Amino acid sequence: MKKIEGLIAAAFSTLNNDHSVNLDVIPALVGKFVKDGLKGVFVCGTNGEGPNLTLDERMQVAEAYVKAAKGRLLVMVHVGHTTISEARKLAVHAQTIGADAISAVAAFYFKPASTELLVDSLAEIASAAPQLPFYYYHIPAVTGVSVDMINFLHLAEPRIPTLAGIKYTAATLHEYQACLNYKEGKFDILYGYDELLLSALAVGARGAIGSTYNFAAPHYYEVMRLFHAGRLEAAQQKQLQLVEMIRAFLKFSPIPAQKEIMNLCGLNLGPCRLPLGQLSASDQVTLRESLDAIAFR
Amino acid sequence: MKKIEGLIAAAFSTLNNDHSVNLDVIPALVGKFVKDGLKGVFVCGTNGEGPNLTLDERMQVAEAYVKAAKGRLLVMVHVGHTTISEARKLAVHAQTIGADAISAVAAFYFKPASTELLVDSLAEIASAAPQLPFYYYHIPAVTGVSVDMINFLHLAEPRIPTLAGIKYTAATLHEYQACLNYKEGKFDILYGYDELLLSALAVGARGAIGSTYNFAAPHYYEVMRLFHAGRLEAAQQKQLQLVEMIRAFLKFSPIPAQKEIMNLCGLNLGPCRLPLGQLSASDQVTLRESLDAIAFR
Amino acid sequence: MKKIEGLIAAAFSTLNNDHSVNLDVIPALVGKFVKDGLKGVFVCGTNGEGPNLTLDERMQVAEAYVKAAKGRLLVMVHVGHTTISEARKLAVHAQTIGADAISAVAAFYFKPASTELLVDSLAEIASAAPQLPFYYYHIPAVTGVSVDMINFLHLAEPRIPTLAGIKYTAATLHEYQACLNYKEGKFDILYGYDELLLSALAVGARGAIGSTYNFAAPHYYEVMRLFHAGRLEAAQQKQLQLVEMIRAFLKFSPIPAQKEIMNLCGLNLGPCRLPLGQLSASDQVTLRESLDAIAFR
Amino acid sequence: MKKIEGLIAAAFSTLNNDHSVNLDVIPALVGKFVKDGLKGVFVCGTNGEGPNLTLDERMQVAEAYVKAAKGRLLVMVHVGHTTISEARKLAVHAQTIGADAISAVAAFYFKPASTELLVDSLAEIASAAPQLPFYYYHIPAVTGVSVDMINFLHLAEPRIPTLAGIKYTAATLHEYQACLNYKEGKFDILYGYDELLLSALAVGARGAIGSTYNFAAPHYYEVMRLFHAGRLEAAQQKQLQLVEMIRAFLKFSPIPAQKEIMNLCGLNLGPCRLPLGQLSASDQVTLRESLDAIAFR
Repeated sequence: MKKIEGLIAAAFSTLNNDHSVNLDVIPALVGKFVKDGLKGVFVCGTNGEGPNLTLDERMQVAEAYVKAAKGRLLVMVHVGHTTISEARKLAVHAQTIGADAISAVAAFYFKPASTELLVDSLAEIASAAPQLPFYYYHIPAVTGVSVDMINFLHLAEPRIPTLAGIKYTAATLHEYQACLNYKEGKFDILYGYDELLLSALAVGARGAIGSTYNFAAPHYYEVMRLFHAGRLEAAQQKQLQLVEMIRAFLKFSPIPAQKEIMNLCGLNLGPCRLPLGQLSASDQVTLRESLDAIAFR
Repeated sequence: MKKIEGLIAAAFSTLNNDHSVNLDVIPALVGKFVKDGLKGVFVCGTNGEGPNLTLDERMQVAEAYVKAAKGRLLVMVHVGHTTISEARKLAVHAQTIGADAISAVAAFYFKPASTELLVDSLAEIASAAPQLPFYYYHIPAVTGVSVDMINFLHLAEPRIPTLAGIKYTAATLHEYQACLNYKEGKFDILYGYDELLLSALAVGARGAIGSTYNFAAPHYYEVMRLFHAGRLEAAQQKQLQLVEMIRAFLKFSPIPAQKEIMNLCGLNLGPCRLPLGQLSASDQVTLRESLDAIAFR
Repeated sequence: MKKIEGLIAAAFSTLNNDHSVNLDVIPALVGKFVKDGLKGVFVCGTNGEGPNLTLDERMQVAEAYVKAAKGRLLVMVHVGHTTISEARKLAVHAQTIGADAISAVAAFYFKPASTELLVDSLAEIASAAPQLPFYYYHIPAVTGVSVDMINFLHLAEPRIPTLAGIKYTAATLHEYQACLNYKEGKFDILYGYDELLLSALAVGARGAIGSTYNFAAPHYYEVMRLFHAGRLEAAQQKQLQLVEMIRAFLKFSPIPAQKEIMNLCGLNLGPCRLPLGQLSASDQVTLRESLDAIAFR
Repeated sequence: MKKIEGLIAAAFSTLNNDHSVNLDVIPALVGKFVKDGLKGVFVCGTNGEGPNLTLDERMQVAEAYVKAAKGRLLVMVHVGHTTISEARKLAVHAQTIGADAISAVAAFYFKPASTELLVDSLAEIASAAPQLPFYYYHIPAVTGVSVDMINFLHLAEPRIPTLAGIKYTAATLHEYQACLNYKEGKFDILYGYDELLLSALAVGARGAIGSTYNFAAPHYYEVMRLFHAGRLEAAQQKQLQLVEMIRAFLKFSPIPAQKEIMNLCGLNLGPCRLPLGQLSASDQVTLRESLDAIAFR
């Protein structure tokens, strides 16, 4: 697979009010993503509440995205799971339905005690979908698994033939830059903190995966356009507005708050599942007012 | 259910060399547990690699234990899972096969942001097995979920009708003591750090669940006997030997190391699954020598 | 020095309302400690706000305690400091004024990167007072320095000739027990979590240093008496009351809250210094009511 | 004070082989800094082992820098200390000797329990030098004090009349950007992670304080020049080389390793003080070879 340039939405879960999975809304979502110029969609990851869905539901959701995308978007399916053999089932399924790539977090109940054990675990998962590019999903703030990513690439490169890159979700942009330049840019290192996109561009980021690209992609594309046009101050102003938007919803539980923003955009994706909570009615008002105050919506 | 007095083994996974589940060894294990005077077995928990097994495998293992126990041991099935609806399936199954109780850790990918959300999550799980006593499995060092347990009892008591108690795996024995005495001892608070058993007895522990009870239960019963007979110094000497035994294997990855000890006891339970590793041949020798040095085996 | 049996108060700072040091109240405090049967006083430690006092003030306070004690109490002076050479000045001074022992935490801005560097640092401090027994003050929750204490004893024993023991402030009672039994009890390992005293007694504790011994020592002595008389249930009831008392004040900032309790006992020790805060008037009322509710005062 | 544009060296401690302070080397250091185009020097901070020096030594060092600088460099004196009244003495002294600014970390033994208490503590320090601009030294990875910096500015602005800005040492560049833009850029927010300089420039950084500016400032100025000239790829290549240089020495204890690099540059600044260690002879060789391998020196 060629390296990904542009933005990928880390899609939210789509639920009905009774918390069952709502597949019907997915074509509309995909339509919005295509219209917004997104290059792909990351399915059933953190933001998509993958860990809150059953295997079956995850497969249904992945399938619905592949069908709706019709080749207009890359579909990257997150298959990470506490249980490696369940992750393998998801990987097999992703390959079968014609997904474009898979990705997995580190095991997160038992955390791999060494980079070697991390690589061994991921190799088992990746080998279940030998035709799909594999991206390691590095998100130490959630999994608690924090190993040096250059050392990871050294060890994983010979062990995972399908290794395509990393979904790099951490603020350590110097390590990110080193990964981008590992063996003259052999791997595709996608950046995962939307609020740091401009900083990531500065060290060479070409592609990014994130939650706010679900609803604010055109703004980020504007950051990219201005940056590459050498209009740095304008890029900074635009990125600053996005930082303020993110600060506004981070006062609340981030995933429920962003689903509320999707709602404000006219896309009702339903509630979140436990252990995630919901915004209270008054929190919803506060969030709306905060977004209005920075002229964001 | 009456409160549990005595020791419960947090059983190890039983695997074949090809990492498939080995149900055949379970009757022998149960036989050993009965012979050692254990009161119960905790199935598919941390030590039993529950998070490394598929739903199907967890059900098979639970069923094998219930069948082998034949009422001679309580079977407490750990049904905790990142996905609450999967946990509910395990709970339903545990009730169907005639298990004696269920238990669950907090969700551990998304960590509940409040005690209320923790209780809401557990209430959903417990309600799937309305006839089985439910024990919350408190193990903050692994799940990262660390809330005040007295506050938890206050909130959970009205919300979880089957709440029987807590598997309390933390060193904070003052809070443990407060839980033991909550509403004049309404709940069954089982202690989970074997190396602190004597200290836990001192504040009123009657029951405990732990990994080293798989192979060293008679030693711990001796600690209990000596303590209750007022022979404190002898109890301390015995507990000290157990502390040294645990220190010996904690130099290695604890679960693989303990499976090696089971092997030395003549019970081959196979390897661990990834992301857990294995002891190297030289580590196995070192472990054996350490145990011999303290005359433990 | 013989091993210490009994309780040592980790004395609070004594300040005037303008935050200057109040030495005048120290004789009354010492009088209370003697009357309560305390064996010693730990001066300028965590509870005594050592890190909030200047070197000069720490010396004045230490001197005032030595003078007031007149041999009726052991005076253990905490000389720990970010700067080792400042700690050495405090150690020299403690020896000069006739203190009975010194103690020091690990350096806590730069945390020692290995147990060897920790021991090297402490050896420099201890050697400044070659006639005084030295206790390492192990309090990982505050300093962030968490190394295996048995390994520490192995390395420190030959390097620190005056090493007398450890002020062990952590809940890991199995390691505490191992330390107590290191080389047949060569070192004096004083326990530091008051709320776990009964559990510590069970594994062999003979001496303890703590903050609540300032105002509740007779209650703890009752725990010890009951425990050693074999009256376990009564000891548990008494310890439980103390656990509840501690839970009551831990709702607030612990040191300011305990100074308020001293105030309720008729000993006005003044405010705390920044960065510690003060209890608001309404918090003071809540604290008083909580203590009354458990009939403690 | 005008905002600082350019680089400030976080100077290393200058010690003799017997660990006493070496003031004689300071003029040569300052000479190098001036020649390298540095705008200032940050004295007795983390890198300068401020917490390992006595008050007296810190004053001597500050004075030596002011004298040597002769107005050619700004001298910013770090006065942070566990004890606020000691920090005040350092602040008074800094003003007396004609330093250009002061800075302080949060109290780090007792960590401020709220942003309000942090601000109260810093206000006490800053008010001791009412004629000097005050920079809060935000370095959560070392102090463990991690509060929202925008909220900090809101609270500190009215309470600290001399507040000039923040020495911002954290990877969270989105918050850094928000601080830069607080009230249209009212405050001077200097960036503190050298390996992220290019990323920081992208969001608007104009000034930075760091340890590697002691020996590699011309390289970083080249990054800045290329970046501002719109030659992004060349800037990235240059920054990448610096990232690799930093990765090379981070295999070792960072401060001793960097003092060794200074030594390789012909400036012998002596050893570090405990609890910091020293590089072994073989580590020195490895470090030298690593730097040579990336053609850095």
